Amino acid sequence: MTLSAKQQLREQDLVDQVVASFAATPDPRLRELMGAVVRHLHAFLREVRLTEAEWSTAIEFLTAVGHITDDRRQEFILLSDTLGASMQTIAMNNEAYANATEATVFGPFFVDDSPQIPTGGDIAAGASGEPCYVEGTVRDTCGGPIPGARLEVWEADDKGFYDVQYGDDRTAGRAHLFTEADGSFRFWGITPTPYPIPHDGPVGAMLAATGRSPMRAAHLHFMVTAPGHRTLVTHIFVRGDSYIDRDSVFGVKESLITDFMPQPAGTATPDGRAVDGSWSRARFDIVLAPGD
Amino acid sequence: MTLSAKQQLREQDLVDQVVASFAATPDPRLRELMGAVVRHLHAFLREVRLTEAEWSTAIEFLTAVGHITDDRRQEFILLSDTLGASMQTIAMNNEAYANATEATVFGPFFVDDSPQIPTGGDIAAGASGEPCYVEGTVRDTCGGPIPGARLEVWEADDKGFYDVQYGDDRTAGRAHLFTEADGSFRFWGITPTPYPIPHDGPVGAMLAATGRSPMRAAHLHFMVTAPGHRTLVTHIFVRGDSYIDRDSVFGVKESLITDFMPQPAGTATPDGRAVDGSWSRARFDIVLAPGD
Ligand SMILES: [Fe+2]
Ligand SMILES: [Fe+2]
Repeated sequence: MTLSAKQQLREQDLVDQVVASFAATPDPRLRELMGAVVRHLHAFLREVRLTEAEWSTAIEFLTAVGHITDDRRQEFILLSDTLGASMQTIAMNNEAYANATEATVFGPFFVDDSPQIPTGGDIAAGASGEPCYVEGTVRDTCGGPIPGARLEVWEADDKGFYDVQYGDDRTAGRAHLFTEADGSFRFWGITPTPYPIPHDGPVGAMLAATGRSPMRAAHLHFMVTAPGHRTLVTHIFVRGDSYIDRDSVFGVKESLITDFMPQPAGTATPDGRAVDGSWSRARFDIVLAPGD
Repeated sequence: MTLSAKQQLREQDLVDQVVASFAATPDPRLRELMGAVVRHLHAFLREVRLTEAEWSTAIEFLTAVGHITDDRRQEFILLSDTLGASMQTIAMNNEAYANATEATVFGPFFVDDSPQIPTGGDIAAGASGEPCYVEGTVRDTCGGPIPGARLEVWEADDKGFYDVQYGDDRTAGRAHLFTEADGSFRFWGITPTPYPIPHDGPVGAMLAATGRSPMRAAHLHFMVTAPGHRTLVTHIFVRGDSYIDRDSVFGVKESLITDFMPQPAGTATPDGRAVDGSWSRARFDIVLAPGD
């Protein structure tokens, strides 16, 4: 489609007018952000020549995203995740910490006030799945151990659900623990399995309409905090997982792919725990960047 | 800030990965739209180097926009309006009808099933304000009258509220009527006055934070439909209104600015209606483009 010069001028004039309306914003960063939102939003509209019907569909879509969102379901985060916007934000803000462990998406399933477990404890608390022994260390970028670092760990059960999706008030598959004096940690969880992001809402409809799978590559979430260090939000992924190259939220980073070593039934456990059937074990050594 | 080549590559690679995830979208238009959403969204993120805290603020903002939206309040439309996105969409889709009456934003206050009034009837139905006599014609682009065209007209009262904002179920300040055999119409309403868009929600907070006024230039809404013609959604604006050059939704077009001629108390009305005090009159001749 060729646009008349007059029409192009009219459209650009509107963009300029909207950007100018933000000129008196007291906070210069907010002024910059709003100007950029306007320019990129209008560039999108003009590039695709959005129709009025498509505009209405977009309004309805966003309304549905808003209406399904509540304290336990954050569809806007799912939308950001599935458009790669969450991962891009993470990627941009973690560049400076190149020798520290890489970050990935936070996801919508973190819950404050998880139960504390001792070193070697079990986070499963009834979440179903194959037992998995996870051990590692938390160190600074010079290799020194970080004792007392707080690890929040959370994961879905082998049916693909987090506790907050059970519909009761159970807490399962999540806990926090602290590193020992030598920076080490160990805990039992369950072997991560792929699961779909919640796809019964508008984001799921978007994925279905575009031929995309809602499946996430199998993973175990970590959030690691320690005074004087930058908080790390990340996952470990399972090497060989069938969704490793098509994670629905683009969260996989090569450095986070971990060997989850299968342990046949009867294999002795490192801490003498009696396990009925097979289990797995994984090692994750974490490096925290300096920060607050 | 200078980005390392490696970081630039990593960020661009993520964009490419997300665009590619939509490659199997069956509908080519949807594929185009999603690809463009992703490219422009990531271009925005990368240009402003969005921080994780800003990302969280954006998620919270959109969540608040979603939660205040209900059957009577459409905050996403307000957001689109105040970012000029609604007006840009209108502008792009109405270019082809250059000799027809120009369109402007629909706004969030239209209601289906408005009451019908006869020619010369009053749409106010209790909405407060100075009476205003509006007359005009509906014609096609060749100048021929269009009889039986349906005009939906709606406006705020002089306190700045539409009936749907009253909080009861009253209908006021809105009605529909049909043109006569010669294409003419006339009705009584109230002289439009400036009013703020609803600004007690997140969009109002955005306007406040950016030093923008929520006021709309005074206007009277029209939606005109007739078989064989393109539906026209527009306003007439009041020449000389103090917000005419800083309408909060960028809806003003020069061709839609209309003289609302003040009529001092005691001036005889065209239809003999007894008016207690001053009134105004305006003329709006409408041209509909061909279409369905
Ligand atoms: Fe997860
Ligand atoms: Fe209005």
